[in-house]
Amino acid sequence: MPDAMTGPAALAPRLRAVCGADGVVTDPARRRTYESDGITYHSAVPGIVVLPETTGQVAAVVRLCAEHGVPFVPRGSGTGLSGGALPRPDGVLVVTSRMRRVIEVDIPNERAVVQPGVFNLDVTRAAAPHGYHYAPDPSSRQVCSVGGNIAENSGGAHCLKYGFTVNHVTGLEIVTPRGDVVRLGGKAPDAPGYDLIGVFVGSEGTLGIATEITVRLTRAPQRTSTLLAAFPTMDAGGRAVSAIIAAGVLPAAVEMMDALAVEAAEAAVRCGYPEGAGAVLIVELDGAAEDVAAQFEAVTALCRAAGAFAVRAADDPAERARIWKGRRSAFAAVGRISPAYIVQDGVVPRTALGGVLARISELSARSGIRVANVFHAGDGNLHPLVLFDDAEPGAAERAAEVSGAILDLCVEHGGSITGEHGVGVDKACHMPRMFSDDDLATMDLFRRAFDPDGIANPEKVLPTPRLCGERPGVVRGEHPLVASGQAELF
Amino acid sequence: MPDAMTGPAALAPRLRAVCGADGVVTDPARRRTYESDGITYHSAVPGIVVLPETTGQVAAVVRLCAEHGVPFVPRGSGTGLSGGALPRPDGVLVVTSRMRRVIEVDIPNERAVVQPGVFNLDVTRAAAPHGYHYAPDPSSRQVCSVGGNIAENSGGAHCLKYGFTVNHVTGLEIVTPRGDVVRLGGKAPDAPGYDLIGVFVGSEGTLGIATEITVRLTRAPQRTSTLLAAFPTMDAGGRAVSAIIAAGVLPAAVEMMDALAVEAAEAAVRCGYPEGAGAVLIVELDGAAEDVAAQFEAVTALCRAAGAFAVRAADDPAERARIWKGRRSAFAAVGRISPAYIVQDGVVPRTALGGVLARISELSARSGIRVANVFHAGDGNLHPLVLFDDAEPGAAERAAEVSGAILDLCVEHGGSITGEHGVGVDKACHMPRMFSDDDLATMDLFRRAFDPDGIANPEKVLPTPRLCGERPGVVRGEHPLVASGQAELF
Repeated sequence: MPDAMTGPAALAPRLRAVCGADGVVTDPARRRTYESDGITYHSAVPGIVVLPETTGQVAAVVRLCAEHGVPFVPRGSGTGLSGGALPRPDGVLVVTSRMRRVIEVDIPNERAVVQPGVFNLDVTRAAAPHGYHYAPDPSSRQVCSVGGNIAENSGGAHCLKYGFTVNHVTGLEIVTPRGDVVRLGGKAPDAPGYDLIGVFVGSEGTLGIATEITVRLTRAPQRTSTLLAAFPTMDAGGRAVSAIIAAGVLPAAVEMMDALAVEAAEAAVRCGYPEGAGAVLIVELDGAAEDVAAQFEAVTALCRAAGAFAVRAADDPAERARIWKGRRSAFAAVGRISPAYIVQDGVVPRTALGGVLARISELSARSGIRVANVFHAGDGNLHPLVLFDDAEPGAAERAAEVSGAILDLCVEHGGSITGEHGVGVDKACHMPRMFSDDDLATMDLFRRAFDPDGIANPEKVLPTPRLCGERPGVVRGEHPLVASGQAELF
Repeated sequence: MPDAMTGPAALAPRLRAVCGADGVVTDPARRRTYESDGITYHSAVPGIVVLPETTGQVAAVVRLCAEHGVPFVPRGSGTGLSGGALPRPDGVLVVTSRMRRVIEVDIPNERAVVQPGVFNLDVTRAAAPHGYHYAPDPSSRQVCSVGGNIAENSGGAHCLKYGFTVNHVTGLEIVTPRGDVVRLGGKAPDAPGYDLIGVFVGSEGTLGIATEITVRLTRAPQRTSTLLAAFPTMDAGGRAVSAIIAAGVLPAAVEMMDALAVEAAEAAVRCGYPEGAGAVLIVELDGAAEDVAAQFEAVTALCRAAGAFAVRAADDPAERARIWKGRRSAFAAVGRISPAYIVQDGVVPRTALGGVLARISELSARSGIRVANVFHAGDGNLHPLVLFDDAEPGAAERAAEVSGAILDLCVEHGGSITGEHGVGVDKACHMPRMFSDDDLATMDLFRRAFDPDGIANPEKVLPTPRLCGERPGVVRGEHPLVASGQAELF
């Protein structure tokens, strides 16, 4: 542990020499604004904050950290949901919010080159005039950064068809935890040597900082249709999902919400979903116009056959946006119907979805803890929201138990402890539920190859004794971003 | 370097205790059958060969190697094209040919689980009755192993639309170079922790041996149409490719061959391509029937507009197979028109294709060395075949120079030194053309995290002084597999 002489505050003059006076934050009140990310249970005030603007500045900051044994934590927009950007009082927080330049849009090669602080949706905005978009679309895409997406290997509703972030990154410039600037890949599809892009994407800031990112652009589909189907029960909705996949349709997205999630979304954004639904299914189809039309008919018929009592179609952007608004707002909106809740994230093979949802219902009934389900049904990626009242003695503990038990269910059913939100500090202690000692030791060896001194986002991802026993992330009350109009945060 | 007492031969009794008497090959004549892979320039007789049948046996073999400091080289079917499976006289060759079990075909989850020795095409054969296939399709798919595909991150004609091997692997059981059995991923789409699958795939045997592989199965398209278009010049063919991509069509494959490659293919397999073509383009379209029909019309019109003088369509499997036979046979068939040739493999951003091909023509004209071009045009993945007569003094050297200059062209144009054949021993010394010292040092750190003693396929992939200066792989005369009916090897 660095002392005051070598700790982050002592580095301030040298950091100012690198990033300029306005690129270094030492004021306690300003530092406090970085104390947590998308979940507010974890918080810590960073020892010092730097706002570099160039790769050279990032490398110089990291080299200073390495030289003095000071840990650093990278941070994009701070919308993460597993505490991956949780600062350290003894460390430097490296914030990429001044690195927001779209460097190049190369349409003939279908690539964009961006700085890490660029907002996800801004890549699509830059490509849209050319008929392209950037496919990975986490619900927070208006404000989350591409660098953060790299760290978490972010998904989104459309990764069923288009894949995760890792499938869309072809080149990276990174600053390693020793301060070296290294290039991985480029614009061409497959680079020789180790595909370190694959492992850097999703490494949650523990292998360094991406300073320039080359992503694949995807041609905007000729037509996109969105279908909203209401079912009496989750079971009926699940049958529809299975029937759609079995019929060989590959929708761009298949999202499901249960009654409680629908109730929350209605309360927050009045999305106008059919009343009395036990489950709402959103199916998005995209591609060539006639193809989409044919699939749309097929999906409608399959939903009806599975018991849908209402099916609504949307082809125009405004109506589609209205359908999506409910879904994208659901997480944050749950604060309207519960004083506090845990945002859980797990994944199971799609065929296990029905079984796992039934077990979650049982867990909920037995514990008296309500669970709202919002999920990427096509991927088997569950997002249970575990609701409780933290004024009620013992409720938080029971909620944490239910939340943990859901992860056990996922692992039991051949799935994993996180679908797309990452491990961060939140799930580091759950890693041994999935991985053997050999598995974890291999990961640690790999980490140490990049970061021999353990200064890059330490105590995230891999379990350390200090962390285990902490509770998962809890949101209390309505999320502040719902009120401010940024409801589609998660 | 191990001496006779601790070298591979001394391990024979202990290896027999692990793999059984018939699982260990010490006889020099039998060992010699493993001396090279798909290119015959490099050869070395392995110190000893083992043929394990289970994960436990592979782990026990590797632990013995680790204990005694003996290097090991993994080998699948030996169809590689960069000398990645080149044995070592001082090492153990671990051959997976007895690990050919398809463990599970899980249609509801769209996955297959296979042992590493399973032939690529046998995954598709196992899935076909259910309407599925395994998408990555190197030309050698009848005989190459899935384990070898993992090692090389193999592509194939259809990776334009479907991606490389890495996009189709969701789970791996590996034996690390220290003999630990480690699981990466599974059937679910995204696992927490480091995505070591991404980096293991394409690591060319330097990080251990995959012993169980979980792959994604892809639904067979409703319809597949193949179009063969003949152009007067390569330029005209290239214009057609650009027009197709710019029109927003995403074909399953876009392959191009020049006049010399067509001549060789005709001589070998009489594929009946139109006479007098300066370039032949093969475009495969797949998807929903009406979609394919519409795209087919569009592609035909674009080819005609770019100057195609003949366009031939094939919908039925027999006619499609005939079109593909010429393409898939082209590499091996070049032996019919040249006593010797170098198989080169490079990649450039698609937009640079025209410029690079023109420069290759200039190189060829200036040096008097003929170059036949066969390539995945949609991906920008070139496979120039550099022809020469090794009876002619100095020809081999000039061919090697041309071949090396082609790689320089690829790097200059923002591409890379290998598209899909890997680095192996063949291109290890070219790595510094693409990567800085920091880049290579980072790769080496990563390698050593898995393999601290440097026993896993040493001297492959990363440059070592001993290797540099060697010539690229050369094939002399007609490849033996053309004569034996396995012409579609590469």
